Amino acid sequence: MTKQQLHIIKIGGNVIDNSESLHHFLKDFTALEGYKILVHGGGKVATQLQEELGIEPKLIDGRRITDIDTLRVVTMVYGGLINKNIVAQLQKFGTNAIGLTGADGNFIRTNRRAVKAIDYGYVGDIDDKSIDPGNISRLMEAGFTPVFCAITHDGDGQLLNTNADTIASALAVALSSLYETTLIYCFEKKGVLHDINDEESVIREIDPKKYEQLREQQVIHSGMLPKLDNAFTAINCGVKAVIIGRSDDLGQLQSKQPFGTRLSK
Amino acid sequence: MTKQQLHIIKIGGNVIDNSESLHHFLKDFTALEGYKILVHGGGKVATQLQEELGIEPKLIDGRRITDIDTLRVVTMVYGGLINKNIVAQLQKFGTNAIGLTGADGNFIRTNRRAVKAIDYGYVGDIDDKSIDPGNISRLMEAGFTPVFCAITHDGDGQLLNTNADTIASALAVALSSLYETTLIYCFEKKGVLHDINDEESVIREIDPKKYEQLREQQVIHSGMLPKLDNAFTAINCGVKAVIIGRSDDLGQLQSKQPFGTRLSK
Repeated sequence: MTKQQLHIIKIGGNVIDNSESLHHFLKDFTALEGYKILVHGGGKVATQLQEELGIEPKLIDGRRITDIDTLRVVTMVYGGLINKNIVAQLQKFGTNAIGLTGADGNFIRTNRRAVKAIDYGYVGDIDDKSIDPGNISRLMEAGFTPVFCAITHDGDGQLLNTNADTIASALAVALSSLYETTLIYCFEKKGVLHDINDEESVIREIDPKKYEQLREQQVIHSGMLPKLDNAFTAINCGVKAVIIGRSDDLGQLQSKQPFGTRLSK
Repeated sequence: MTKQQLHIIKIGGNVIDNSESLHHFLKDFTALEGYKILVHGGGKVATQLQEELGIEPKLIDGRRITDIDTLRVVTMVYGGLINKNIVAQLQKFGTNAIGLTGADGNFIRTNRRAVKAIDYGYVGDIDDKSIDPGNISRLMEAGFTPVFCAITHDGDGQLLNTNADTIASALAVALSSLYETTLIYCFEKKGVLHDINDEESVIREIDPKKYEQLREQQVIHSGMLPKLDNAFTAINCGVKAVIIGRSDDLGQLQSKQPFGTRLSK
Protein backbone atom coordinates (compact mmCIF):
# COMPACT_ATOMS: atom_id res chain seq x y z
CA MET A 1 0.00 0.00 0.00
CA THR A 2 1.29 3.46 -0.86
CA LYS A 3 1.97 5.55 2.20
CA GLN A 4 0.19 8.88 2.46
CA GLN A 5 2.17 12.12 2.46
CA LEU A 6 3.04 13.88 5.68
CA HIS A 7 4.80 17.23 6.00
CA ILE A 8 6.41 18.17 9.30
CA ILE A 9 7.33 21.84 9.38
CA LYS A 10 9.44 23.54 12.01
CA ILE A 11 9.38 27.30 12.50
CA GLY A 12 11.57 29.31 14.86
CA GLY A 13 11.79 32.74 16.44
CA ASN A 14 12.29 34.63 13.17
CA VAL A 15 8.73 33.66 12.14
CA ILE A 16 7.09 33.68 15.56
CA ASP A 17 8.38 37.15 16.49
CA ASN A 18 7.06 38.73 13.29
CA SER A 19 3.26 38.71 13.24
CA GLU A 20 3.10 39.45 9.51
CA SER A 21 5.46 36.59 8.63
CA LEU A 22 3.58 34.27 10.98
CA HIS A 23 0.21 35.19 9.48
CA HIS A 24 1.54 34.60 5.96
CA PHE A 25 3.13 31.31 6.93
CA LEU A 26 0.01 29.96 8.69
CA LYS A 27 -2.08 30.75 5.60
CA ASP A 28 0.36 28.82 3.40
CA PHE A 29 0.51 26.01 5.96
CA THR A 30 -3.31 25.73 5.75
CA ALA A 31 -3.17 25.52 1.93
CA LEU A 32 -0.69 22.64 2.03
CA GLU A 33 -2.50 19.39 1.19
CA GLY A 34 -2.21 16.08 3.01
CA TYR A 35 -1.29 15.32 6.60
CA LYS A 36 0.83 17.91 8.34
CA ILE A 37 2.36 18.72 11.69
CA LEU A 38 3.67 22.08 12.86
CA VAL A 39 6.52 22.33 15.38
CA HIS A 40 7.42 25.73 16.81
CA GLY A 41 10.23 26.98 18.97
CA GLY A 42 10.24 29.95 21.27
CA GLY A 43 11.14 33.43 20.24
CA LYS A 44 11.81 36.60 22.10
CA VAL A 45 8.66 36.47 24.24
CA ALA A 46 10.06 33.95 26.73
CA THR A 47 13.21 36.02 27.25
CA GLN A 48 11.11 39.18 27.62
CA LEU A 49 8.87 37.54 30.23
CA GLN A 50 11.93 36.29 32.12
CA GLU A 51 13.27 39.83 32.19
CA GLU A 52 9.90 41.23 33.31
CA LEU A 53 9.86 38.67 36.14
CA GLY A 54 13.49 39.39 37.05
CA ILE A 55 14.64 35.86 36.27
CA GLU A 56 18.33 35.93 35.40
CA PRO A 57 19.07 33.77 32.31
CA LYS A 58 21.52 31.10 33.49
CA LEU A 59 24.25 30.10 31.09
CA ILE A 60 27.05 27.65 31.79
CA ASP A 61 29.80 27.42 29.14
CA GLY A 62 27.46 29.28 26.79
CA ARG A 63 24.67 26.73 27.22
CA ARG A 64 21.31 27.80 28.57
CA ILE A 65 20.16 26.14 31.79
CA THR A 66 16.45 25.42 32.39
CA ASP A 67 15.99 25.89 36.12
CA ILE A 68 12.50 25.53 37.64
CA ASP A 69 11.61 29.21 37.12
CA THR A 70 12.72 29.06 33.49
CA LEU A 71 10.69 25.88 32.95
CA ARG A 72 7.66 27.68 34.38
CA VAL A 73 8.19 30.56 31.93
CA VAL A 74 8.65 28.37 28.85
CA THR A 75 5.63 26.25 29.80
CA MET A 76 3.55 29.43 29.96
CA VAL A 77 4.99 31.07 26.84
CA TYR A 78 5.58 28.10 24.50
CA GLY A 79 2.71 25.88 25.69
CA GLY A 80 0.23 28.69 26.41
CA LEU A 81 0.76 32.04 24.75
CA ILE A 82 2.51 31.14 21.48
CA ASN A 83 0.96 27.73 20.92
CA LYS A 84 -2.65 28.75 21.55
CA ASN A 85 -2.39 31.93 19.48
CA ILE A 86 -1.02 29.90 16.56
CA VAL A 87 -3.89 27.43 16.98
CA ALA A 88 -6.51 30.21 17.05
CA GLN A 89 -5.06 31.70 13.85
CA LEU A 90 -4.93 28.31 12.13
CA GLN A 91 -8.59 27.74 13.03
CA LYS A 92 -9.41 31.09 11.44
CA PHE A 93 -7.80 29.92 8.20
CA GLY A 94 -9.56 26.55 8.35
CA THR A 95 -6.91 24.18 9.73
CA ASN A 96 -8.41 22.06 12.51
CA ALA A 97 -5.33 22.47 14.71
CA ILE A 98 -4.74 21.07 18.20
CA GLY A 99 -1.94 22.62 20.23
CA LEU A 100 0.25 20.16 22.08
CA THR A 101 3.18 19.57 24.35
CA GLY A 102 4.77 16.13 24.39
CA ALA A 103 2.83 15.43 27.61
CA ASP A 104 -0.49 15.67 25.76
CA GLY A 105 -1.48 12.27 24.44
CA ASN A 106 1.87 11.02 25.82
CA PHE A 107 3.11 11.93 22.34
CA ILE A 108 6.74 12.73 23.25
CA ARG A 109 8.24 11.17 26.33
CA THR A 110 11.82 12.20 27.03
CA ASN A 111 14.51 11.47 29.58
CA ARG A 112 15.74 14.21 31.83
CA ARG A 113 19.34 14.88 30.88
CA ALA A 114 21.70 13.22 33.35
CA VAL A 115 23.78 15.55 35.51
CA LYS A 116 27.46 15.20 34.57
CA ALA A 117 29.84 18.18 34.54
CA ILE A 118 26.83 20.47 33.98
CA ASP A 119 23.30 20.24 35.34
CA TYR A 120 21.15 21.50 32.46
CA GLY A 121 18.11 21.47 34.70
CA TYR A 122 14.71 20.49 33.34
CA VAL A 123 15.83 19.45 29.87
CA GLY A 124 14.49 16.32 28.19
CA ASP A 125 16.44 14.29 25.64
CA ILE A 126 14.67 12.24 22.99
CA ASP A 127 15.59 8.60 22.38
CA ASP A 128 14.31 5.87 20.04
CA LYS A 129 11.36 5.09 22.30
CA SER A 130 10.28 8.69 22.86
CA ILE A 131 7.57 8.75 20.21
CA ASP A 132 4.78 6.26 19.51
CA PRO A 133 3.82 7.01 15.89
CA GLY A 134 0.51 5.14 16.19
CA ASN A 135 -0.66 7.48 18.92
CA ILE A 136 -0.03 10.60 16.81
CA SER A 137 -1.48 8.91 13.76
CA ARG A 138 -4.76 8.27 15.61
CA LEU A 139 -5.05 12.00 16.32
CA MET A 140 -4.42 12.91 12.68
CA GLU A 141 -6.79 10.22 11.37
CA ALA A 142 -9.47 11.70 13.63
CA GLY A 143 -9.15 14.90 11.59
CA PHE A 144 -6.85 17.05 13.70
CA THR A 145 -3.59 18.81 12.79
CA PRO A 146 -1.01 18.65 15.62
CA VAL A 147 0.87 21.83 16.58
CA PHE A 148 3.75 20.97 18.90
CA CYS A 149 5.67 23.36 21.11
CA ALA A 150 9.11 22.55 22.53
CA ILE A 151 7.90 21.07 25.83
CA THR A 152 7.91 17.33 26.55
CA HIS A 153 7.44 15.19 29.68
CA ASP A 154 9.18 12.31 31.45
CA GLY A 155 6.04 10.20 31.95
CA ASP A 156 6.39 10.68 35.71
CA GLY A 157 4.58 14.01 35.93
CA GLN A 158 7.52 16.28 35.06
CA LEU A 159 7.43 18.66 32.10
CA LEU A 160 10.79 19.16 30.35
CA ASN A 161 12.25 21.64 27.88
CA THR A 162 13.34 20.03 24.59
CA ASN A 163 14.93 21.53 21.48
CA ALA A 164 12.30 22.14 18.76
CA ASP A 165 14.62 21.09 15.89
CA THR A 166 15.19 17.77 17.65
CA ILE A 167 11.45 17.29 18.23
CA ALA A 168 10.72 17.92 14.53
CA SER A 169 13.40 15.48 13.42
CA ALA A 170 12.37 12.76 15.91
CA LEU A 171 8.71 13.09 14.87
CA ALA A 172 9.73 12.77 11.21
CA VAL A 173 11.80 9.65 11.82
CA ALA A 174 9.12 7.99 14.00
CA LEU A 175 6.27 8.79 11.59
CA SER A 176 8.21 7.59 8.53
CA SER A 177 7.08 4.07 9.37
CA LEU A 178 3.48 5.13 8.65
CA TYR A 179 3.75 8.07 6.22
CA GLU A 180 5.93 9.26 3.36
CA THR A 181 7.42 12.03 5.44
CA THR A 182 9.03 15.30 4.38
CA LEU A 183 10.67 17.38 7.09
CA ILE A 184 10.88 21.13 6.49
CA TYR A 185 13.08 23.49 8.50
CA CYS A 186 12.17 27.13 8.04
CA PHE A 187 14.93 29.63 8.64
CA GLU A 188 15.76 33.17 7.55
CA LYS A 189 17.42 32.30 4.21
CA LYS A 190 15.96 30.96 0.97
CA GLY A 191 17.94 27.75 1.34
CA VAL A 192 21.52 26.51 1.40
CA LEU A 193 23.40 29.12 -0.61
CA HIS A 194 26.29 28.62 -3.04
CA ASP A 195 27.45 32.12 -2.24
CA ILE A 196 26.61 33.33 1.24
CA ASN A 197 26.38 36.91 -0.08
CA ASP A 198 23.95 36.04 -2.86
CA GLU A 199 20.47 35.23 -1.55
CA GLU A 200 19.50 33.95 -5.02
CA SER A 201 22.27 31.33 -5.21
CA VAL A 202 20.12 28.60 -3.64
CA ILE A 203 21.37 25.05 -4.18
CA ARG A 204 18.12 23.27 -5.07
CA GLU A 205 19.10 19.62 -4.50
CA ILE A 206 21.74 17.98 -2.34
CA ASP A 207 22.27 14.24 -2.16
CA PRO A 208 24.96 12.59 -0.01
CA LYS A 209 27.49 12.64 -2.87
CA LYS A 210 26.94 16.33 -3.58
CA TYR A 211 27.04 17.05 0.14
CA GLU A 212 30.53 15.52 0.27
CA GLN A 213 31.66 17.65 -2.69
CA LEU A 214 30.20 20.85 -1.18
CA ARG A 215 32.00 20.19 2.06
CA GLU A 216 35.27 19.52 0.26
CA GLN A 217 34.87 22.75 -1.71
CA GLN A 218 34.04 24.49 1.60
CA VAL A 219 30.89 25.95 0.01
CA ILE A 220 28.93 24.99 3.10
CA HIS A 221 30.01 27.11 6.03
CA SER A 222 30.48 25.83 9.54
CA GLY A 223 27.08 26.93 10.96
CA MET A 224 25.25 24.95 8.29
CA LEU A 225 27.15 21.70 8.89
CA PRO A 226 25.29 20.43 12.00
CA LYS A 227 21.92 21.30 10.37
CA LEU A 228 22.79 19.26 7.28
CA ASP A 229 24.39 16.43 9.22
CA ASN A 230 21.17 16.09 11.24
CA ALA A 231 19.10 16.23 8.06
CA PHE A 232 21.03 13.35 6.48
CA THR A 233 20.77 11.37 9.71
CA ALA A 234 16.97 11.73 9.50
CA ILE A 235 17.04 10.68 5.84
CA ASN A 236 19.10 7.63 6.69
CA CYS A 237 16.45 6.76 9.30
CA GLY A 238 13.59 6.71 6.79
CA VAL A 239 12.59 10.34 6.21
CA LYS A 240 11.98 10.81 2.49
CA ALA A 241 13.41 14.32 2.21
CA VAL A 242 14.44 17.29 4.30
CA ILE A 243 13.83 20.78 2.92
CA ILE A 244 15.57 23.84 4.32
CA GLY A 245 13.93 27.09 3.23
CA ARG A 246 12.28 30.37 4.11
CA SER A 247 8.85 30.35 5.76
CA ASP A 248 7.66 33.13 3.44
CA ASP A 249 8.17 30.82 0.46
CA LEU A 250 6.21 27.82 1.78
CA GLY A 251 3.40 28.52 -0.70
CA GLN A 252 5.78 27.50 -3.50
CA LEU A 253 5.76 23.94 -2.19
CA GLN A 254 2.01 23.59 -2.77
CA SER A 255 2.24 25.20 -6.24
CA LYS A 256 5.13 22.83 -7.17
CA GLN A 257 7.60 25.71 -7.67
CA PRO A 258 11.16 25.41 -6.37
CA PHE A 259 11.21 25.85 -2.60
CA GLY A 260 14.42 25.92 -0.53
CA THR A 261 17.10 23.27 -0.65
CA ARG A 262 15.91 19.70 -0.89
CA LEU A 263 18.08 17.03 0.75
CA SER A 264 17.42 13.42 -0.13
CA LYS A 265 19.14 10.15 -0.92
CA MET B 1 -28.83 1.87 21.28
CA THR B 2 -27.84 2.59 24.87
CA LYS B 3 -25.69 5.67 25.18
CA GLN B 4 -22.31 5.30 26.83
CA GLN B 5 -21.56 7.06 30.10
CA LEU B 6 -19.67 10.34 30.15
CA HIS B 7 -18.57 12.25 33.23
CA ILE B 8 -17.68 15.92 32.92
CA ILE B 9 -15.92 17.17 36.02
CA LYS B 10 -15.16 20.78 36.84
CA ILE B 11 -12.54 21.74 39.42
CA GLY B 12 -11.75 25.23 40.66
CA GLY B 13 -9.07 27.14 42.51
CA ASN B 14 -9.52 25.30 45.81
CA VAL B 15 -8.23 22.10 44.15
CA ILE B 16 -5.74 23.66 41.73
CA ASP B 17 -4.02 25.75 44.42
CA ASN B 18 -3.47 22.75 46.70
CA SER B 19 -1.00 20.30 45.15
CA GLU B 20 -1.97 17.51 47.55
CA SER B 21 -5.69 17.86 46.80
CA LEU B 22 -4.96 18.06 43.09
CA HIS B 23 -2.78 14.94 43.17
CA HIS B 24 -5.47 13.02 45.06
CA PHE B 25 -8.20 14.22 42.73
CA LEU B 26 -6.29 13.35 39.52
CA LYS B 27 -5.69 9.83 40.84
CA ASP B 28 -9.41 9.39 41.50
CA PHE B 29 -10.23 10.95 38.12
CA THR B 30 -8.00 8.34 36.46
CA ALA B 31 -9.78 5.50 38.31
CA LEU B 32 -13.19 6.67 37.08
CA GLU B 33 -14.41 4.35 34.32
CA GLY B 34 -15.94 5.39 31.00
CA TYR B 35 -15.55 8.54 28.97
CA LYS B 36 -14.59 11.64 30.91
CA ILE B 37 -13.69 15.27 30.46
CA LEU B 38 -11.96 17.54 32.95
CA VAL B 39 -12.63 21.28 33.02
CA HIS B 40 -10.48 23.49 35.22
CA GLY B 41 -10.65 27.12 36.24
CA GLY B 42 -7.84 29.36 37.32
CA GLY B 43 -6.64 29.71 40.84
CA LYS B 44 -4.28 32.06 42.57
CA VAL B 45 -1.44 31.67 40.06
CA ALA B 46 -2.91 34.03 37.47
CA THR B 47 -3.46 36.75 40.07
CA GLN B 48 0.07 36.22 41.41
CA LEU B 49 1.57 36.51 37.93
CA GLN B 50 -0.44 39.68 37.27
CA GLU B 51 0.97 41.14 40.47
CA GLU B 52 4.52 40.10 39.56
CA LEU B 53 4.10 41.79 36.19
CA GLY B 54 2.56 44.89 37.75
CA ILE B 55 -0.76 44.45 35.95
CA GLU B 56 -3.50 46.14 37.96
CA PRO B 57 -6.63 43.94 38.21
CA LYS B 58 -9.44 45.93 36.58
CA LEU B 59 -12.86 45.70 38.18
CA ILE B 60 -15.96 47.62 37.11
CA ASP B 61 -19.00 47.34 39.39
CA GLY B 62 -17.27 44.39 41.04
CA ARG B 63 -16.88 42.49 37.75
CA ARG B 64 -13.45 41.54 36.51
CA ILE B 65 -12.41 42.97 33.14
CA THR B 66 -10.19 40.94 30.78
CA ASP B 67 -8.04 43.54 29.06
CA ILE B 68 -5.36 42.44 26.58
CA ASP B 69 -2.66 42.08 29.27
CA THR B 70 -4.98 40.01 31.45
CA LEU B 71 -5.89 37.79 28.48
CA ARG B 72 -2.17 37.25 27.87
CA VAL B 73 -1.71 36.20 31.51
CA VAL B 74 -4.66 33.80 31.61
CA THR B 75 -3.64 32.25 28.28
CA MET B 76 -0.19 31.58 29.75
CA VAL B 77 -1.38 30.41 33.16
CA TYR B 78 -4.61 28.53 32.36
CA GLY B 79 -3.65 27.26 28.90
CA GLY B 80 0.05 26.68 29.63
CA LEU B 81 1.15 26.31 33.23
CA ILE B 82 -1.91 24.80 34.94
CA ASN B 83 -3.29 22.84 31.99
CA LYS B 84 -0.01 21.19 30.98
CA ASN B 85 0.98 20.32 34.54
CA ILE B 86 -2.40 18.64 35.05
CA VAL B 87 -1.91 16.73 31.78
CA ALA B 88 1.59 15.58 32.78
CA GLN B 89 0.27 14.33 36.12
CA LEU B 90 -2.68 12.55 34.50
CA GLN B 91 -0.26 10.83 32.11
CA LYS B 92 1.75 9.66 35.11
CA PHE B 93 -1.39 8.03 36.53
CA GLY B 94 -2.31 6.48 33.18
CA THR B 95 -4.97 8.81 31.78
CA ASN B 96 -4.19 9.62 28.15
CA ALA B 97 -5.04 13.30 28.60
CA ILE B 98 -4.87 16.07 26.01
CA GLY B 99 -4.90 19.64 27.31
CA LEU B 100 -7.12 22.03 25.39
CA THR B 101 -8.49 25.50 24.99
CA GLY B 102 -11.70 25.97 23.04
CA ALA B 103 -9.55 27.06 20.07
CA ASP B 104 -7.98 23.60 19.83
CA GLY B 105 -10.04 21.42 17.52
CA ASN B 106 -12.45 24.37 17.24
CA PHE B 107 -14.11 22.69 20.22
CA ILE B 108 -15.61 25.79 21.85
CA ARG B 109 -16.31 28.82 19.72
CA THR B 110 -17.75 31.77 21.61
CA ASN B 111 -18.92 35.31 20.88
CA ARG B 112 -17.05 38.24 22.32
CA ARG B 113 -19.39 39.90 24.78
CA ALA B 114 -20.97 43.00 23.25
CA VAL B 115 -19.97 46.32 24.78
CA LYS B 116 -22.99 47.90 26.48
CA ALA B 117 -22.67 49.85 29.73
CA ILE B 118 -19.48 47.90 30.52
CA ASP B 119 -16.75 46.65 28.20
CA TYR B 120 -15.74 43.32 29.72
CA GLY B 121 -12.83 43.08 27.30
CA TYR B 122 -11.78 39.74 25.86
CA VAL B 123 -14.60 37.65 27.31
CA GLY B 124 -16.40 35.02 25.26
CA ASP B 125 -20.01 33.98 25.82
CA ILE B 126 -21.24 30.54 24.89
CA ASP B 127 -24.38 30.05 22.83
CA ASP B 128 -26.24 27.02 21.43
CA LYS B 129 -23.88 26.72 18.46
CA SER B 130 -20.65 27.06 20.46
CA ILE B 131 -19.94 23.37 20.75
CA ASP B 132 -19.98 20.66 18.07
CA PRO B 133 -20.36 17.44 20.10
CA GLY B 134 -19.25 15.27 17.16
CA ASN B 135 -15.88 16.98 17.06
CA ILE B 136 -15.18 16.29 20.74
CA SER B 137 -16.55 12.78 20.42
CA ARG B 138 -14.04 12.01 17.65
CA LEU B 139 -11.20 12.97 19.98
CA MET B 140 -12.53 10.76 22.79
CA GLU B 141 -13.23 7.83 20.44
CA ALA B 142 -9.59 8.08 19.30
CA GLY B 143 -8.62 7.27 22.90
CA PHE B 144 -7.90 10.68 24.39
CA THR B 145 -9.30 12.36 27.52
CA PRO B 146 -9.92 16.09 27.03
CA VAL B 147 -8.74 18.52 29.71
CA PHE B 148 -10.23 21.97 29.07
CA CYS B 149 -9.06 25.24 30.53
CA ALA B 150 -11.25 28.35 30.62
CA ILE B 151 -10.04 29.85 27.32
CA THR B 152 -12.11 29.78 24.12
CA HIS B 153 -11.88 31.51 20.72
CA ASP B 154 -14.11 33.48 18.38
CA GLY B 155 -13.18 31.53 15.23
CA ASP B 156 -11.57 34.66 13.81
CA GLY B 157 -8.17 34.25 15.48
CA GLN B 158 -9.02 35.81 18.83
CA LEU B 159 -8.68 33.91 22.12
CA LEU B 160 -11.28 34.77 24.76
CA ASN B 161 -11.69 34.24 28.50
CA THR B 162 -14.78 32.17 29.41
CA ASN B 163 -16.14 31.08 32.77
CA ALA B 164 -15.15 27.47 33.55
CA ASP B 165 -18.51 26.58 35.16
CA THR B 166 -20.28 27.73 32.00
CA ILE B 167 -17.88 25.71 29.80
CA ALA B 168 -18.52 22.57 31.85
CA SER B 169 -22.28 23.01 31.68
CA ALA B 170 -22.31 23.80 27.94
CA LEU B 171 -20.12 20.75 27.21
CA ALA B 172 -22.50 18.57 29.25
CA VAL B 173 -25.59 19.83 27.43
CA ALA B 174 -24.00 19.51 23.98
CA LEU B 175 -22.61 16.02 24.63
CA SER B 176 -25.89 14.73 26.08
CA SER B 177 -27.04 14.08 22.52
CA LEU B 178 -24.29 11.43 22.21
CA TYR B 179 -23.61 10.24 25.77
CA GLU B 180 -25.47 9.65 29.01
CA THR B 181 -23.82 12.64 30.67
CA THR B 182 -23.24 13.39 34.34
CA LEU B 183 -21.87 16.82 35.20
CA ILE B 184 -19.90 17.13 38.43
CA TYR B 185 -19.02 20.42 40.08
CA CYS B 186 -16.31 20.10 42.70
CA PHE B 187 -16.30 22.71 45.42
CA GLU B 188 -15.07 23.01 49.00
CA LYS B 189 -18.06 21.38 50.71
CA LYS B 190 -19.29 17.77 50.76
CA GLY B 191 -22.45 18.78 48.95
CA VAL B 192 -25.56 20.88 49.45
CA LEU B 193 -25.98 20.98 53.24
CA HIS B 194 -29.18 20.89 55.27
CA ASP B 195 -27.40 22.81 57.99
CA ILE B 196 -24.66 25.12 56.78
CA ASN B 197 -22.77 24.56 60.05
CA ASP B 198 -22.87 20.77 59.82
CA GLU B 199 -20.55 19.44 57.11
CA GLU B 200 -22.16 15.98 57.52
CA SER B 201 -25.72 17.15 56.76
CA VAL B 202 -25.39 16.54 53.01
CA ILE B 203 -28.68 16.32 51.13
CA ARG B 204 -28.05 13.31 48.88
CA GLU B 205 -30.76 13.75 46.25
CA ILE B 206 -32.64 16.77 44.99
CA ASP B 207 -35.30 16.61 42.29
CA PRO B 208 -37.25 19.66 41.05
CA LYS B 209 -40.01 19.10 43.58
CA LYS B 210 -37.61 18.83 46.50
CA TYR B 211 -35.70 21.84 45.20
CA GLU B 212 -38.90 23.87 45.42
CA GLN B 213 -39.51 22.68 48.99
CA LEU B 214 -35.93 23.46 50.05
CA ARG B 215 -36.20 26.95 48.62
CA GLU B 216 -39.51 27.53 50.37
CA GLN B 217 -38.01 26.31 53.68
CA GLN B 218 -35.02 28.59 52.97
CA VAL B 219 -32.67 25.66 53.58
CA ILE B 220 -30.73 26.59 50.48
CA HIS B 221 -28.92 29.84 51.05
CA SER B 222 -28.59 32.60 48.48
CA GLY B 223 -25.08 31.74 47.19
CA MET B 224 -26.20 28.21 46.31
CA LEU B 225 -29.28 29.30 44.32
CA PRO B 226 -27.59 30.28 41.02
CA LYS B 227 -25.48 27.07 41.12
CA LEU B 228 -28.60 24.93 41.51
CA ASP B 229 -30.66 26.94 39.04
CA ASN B 230 -27.93 26.38 36.43
CA ALA B 231 -27.77 22.70 37.32
CA PHE B 232 -31.51 22.23 36.74
CA THR B 233 -31.28 24.19 33.50
CA ALA B 234 -28.63 21.70 32.31
CA ILE B 235 -30.83 18.79 33.40
CA ASN B 236 -33.79 20.23 31.50
CA CYS B 237 -31.52 20.40 28.44
CA GLY B 238 -30.69 16.70 28.50
CA VAL B 239 -27.96 16.21 31.12
CA LYS B 240 -28.80 13.07 33.12
CA ALA B 241 -27.62 14.35 36.50
CA VAL B 242 -25.55 17.07 38.10
CA ILE B 243 -23.52 16.23 41.19
CA ILE B 244 -22.14 18.90 43.51
CA GLY B 245 -19.47 17.57 45.83
CA ARG B 246 -15.95 17.73 47.20
CA SER B 247 -13.04 16.82 44.93
CA ASP B 248 -11.44 14.77 47.74
CA ASP B 249 -14.46 12.45 47.69
CA LEU B 250 -14.54 11.72 43.96
CA GLY B 251 -13.27 8.17 44.61
CA GLN B 252 -16.62 7.38 46.23
CA LEU B 253 -18.32 7.77 42.88
CA GLN B 254 -16.33 4.92 41.36
CA SER B 255 -16.88 2.70 44.42
CA LYS B 256 -20.65 3.44 44.28
CA GLN B 257 -20.66 5.08 47.71
CA PRO B 258 -22.66 8.26 48.29
CA PHE B 259 -20.87 11.24 46.75
CA GLY B 260 -22.07 14.83 47.09
CA THR B 261 -25.55 16.00 46.23
CA ARG B 262 -27.15 14.49 43.15
CA LEU B 263 -29.57 16.63 41.21
CA SER B 264 -31.80 14.96 38.64
CA LYS B 265 -35.34 14.93 37.28
